[in-house]
Amino acid sequence: MSAEGAFIESLRAFATDPAARGLNDDAAVLEFGGETLVITQDVIVEGVHYLADDPPSDVAWKLVAVNLSDLAGKGARPIGALLGFTLGEEAWDRAFAEGLGKALSAFAVPLLGGDTVSAPTRVLSLTAIGRAAGPVPARGGARAGDLLWVSGAIGDAGAGLRILLGELGPGDPLVERYRNPRPRLEAGARLAALVSAMMDVSDGLLLDAARMATASGCAVLVELDALPLSEAYLALLGEARIEAASAGDDYELLFAAAPGAAPAILALAEEIGLPLSRIGRFEAGAGLSLTDAGKPLNLPPKLGFEHG
Amino acid sequence: MSAEGAFIESLRAFATDPAARGLNDDAAVLEFGGETLVITQDVIVEGVHYLADDPPSDVAWKLVAVNLSDLAGKGARPIGALLGFTLGEEAWDRAFAEGLGKALSAFAVPLLGGDTVSAPTRVLSLTAIGRAAGPVPARGGARAGDLLWVSGAIGDAGAGLRILLGELGPGDPLVERYRNPRPRLEAGARLAALVSAMMDVSDGLLLDAARMATASGCAVLVELDALPLSEAYLALLGEARIEAASAGDDYELLFAAAPGAAPAILALAEEIGLPLSRIGRFEAGAGLSLTDAGKPLNLPPKLGFEHG
Repeated sequence: MSAEGAFIESLRAFATDPAARGLNDDAAVLEFGGETLVITQDVIVEGVHYLADDPPSDVAWKLVAVNLSDLAGKGARPIGALLGFTLGEEAWDRAFAEGLGKALSAFAVPLLGGDTVSAPTRVLSLTAIGRAAGPVPARGGARAGDLLWVSGAIGDAGAGLRILLGELGPGDPLVERYRNPRPRLEAGARLAALVSAMMDVSDGLLLDAARMATASGCAVLVELDALPLSEAYLALLGEARIEAASAGDDYELLFAAAPGAAPAILALAEEIGLPLSRIGRFEAGAGLSLTDAGKPLNLPPKLGFEHG
Repeated sequence: MSAEGAFIESLRAFATDPAARGLNDDAAVLEFGGETLVITQDVIVEGVHYLADDPPSDVAWKLVAVNLSDLAGKGARPIGALLGFTLGEEAWDRAFAEGLGKALSAFAVPLLGGDTVSAPTRVLSLTAIGRAAGPVPARGGARAGDLLWVSGAIGDAGAGLRILLGELGPGDPLVERYRNPRPRLEAGARLAALVSAMMDVSDGLLLDAARMATASGCAVLVELDALPLSEAYLALLGEARIEAASAGDDYELLFAAAPGAAPAILALAEEIGLPLSRIGRFEAGAGLSLTDAGKPLNLPPKLGFEHG
């Protein structure tokens, strides 16, 4: 077990409140005053979750987006955020604050508070608070027979990161997808009533699909040829589907739904102008398997990023 | 202006939601589902907010206590917490998790979620969520004519820190007060309806009293001879009142109340077995002044700790 896994396991002993969802979900879900409060806290570290020379406004954007993406995965709409900030070089701090203001205002989320401290390393955290209007899908609600779906396009952000690292040629839309991911808030809120399980894809589609299957006590089969790839991705990387399916930072929605929900899901995709693609199915059993045009494929050695 | 002050000022531009309270308060306060949600996020850094060789279970206790103390200052009772944790040496992590479980269970607070990451420096954060049953006192609600009160005893934790630093002789109860502060949750929840302003004392009584006066647009006068000192403090340090009033980490409640509320406050102190002491008053004007046995005193050069 990884150090992270062992640590979380040791917390589970006292995270027994149902609102904690066994620390297996992307957010805590609690009833408060007759409504449903969804709350998540993500931490990002310089050199681990973002590059030291990323523009500070993009770091702010990402901090906001990763948290809001967790809310989207639970079908919740954000109502506020708290910032945990470590001070550093003043010009960077100023640019970060400006970028944070822009990112929060892009999603109409008010900053409500937080804490500012001095520290030798930049470790930034955000707590995002949201409201769910109906039932809150868990990671672990998928059932054998459900279909597996994903929003948007997969692999763009991973390609954007490789461009920034100098491993690939230029491709602005892909870099933009890495730096300024768009949490799928509208889709998440509208999908919540149609799905049996939902989460955001942040660490790689294959890894996150496997996690959903494990949490649900099912097996999952992913059809590689059904994976939605963007034109920008195809132009730069062609049919590199395994790479797209195991790259991180997509911040798309991954969800399970009974086959009967498909027409409503496709109608929603049309209405909100965001592709929602059927990419596999859940079966009795356990584990992840992969096909391409109906033929079984071996799993790649790395399903995604297990960064702490 | 300090770097911290400048950064917070730059956040104020978009922290305009009333729930943010102008970033001048210890917690955000928002109406949710017809009830009042109080939420706070504090960050502590190794070498800044705690000593590197402090036992990990005490660091966990402190992280919990400082956040719950913010809720206590707003009269809220805790309903859950989220942890932002940076992994390090495994035995330390394990002892921290165990200590966190004990601290949370001591205050009956469930762990609901959070995030665990890798980072070169330990930067730990906790988000505490609470519920307020009635009006939530602000820092800035004191009026000229109000009396100034404080709970418990002042200066113990500061003396405990000096003992740990080897500057003073032994004194277990004082070290205990530094390492395992007790947030005044019951007192805070019961006082909320009686006070015009309330906050916790974390950075030094004089500094925090001056902050309350500034936020309230009043002057405040502190009567040094009225300061509650513990027997352990008096035994070790005698009448070192200025030192007690400017030491940090008390985690007591500081509050303003109209003179007519005094009998109810004293009755509450009796009922819950926690001293609540009248230590000064608010007046028209601005600034902090100090008396000892009725005679004006000069302010010390340092009113408390302005650590980020």
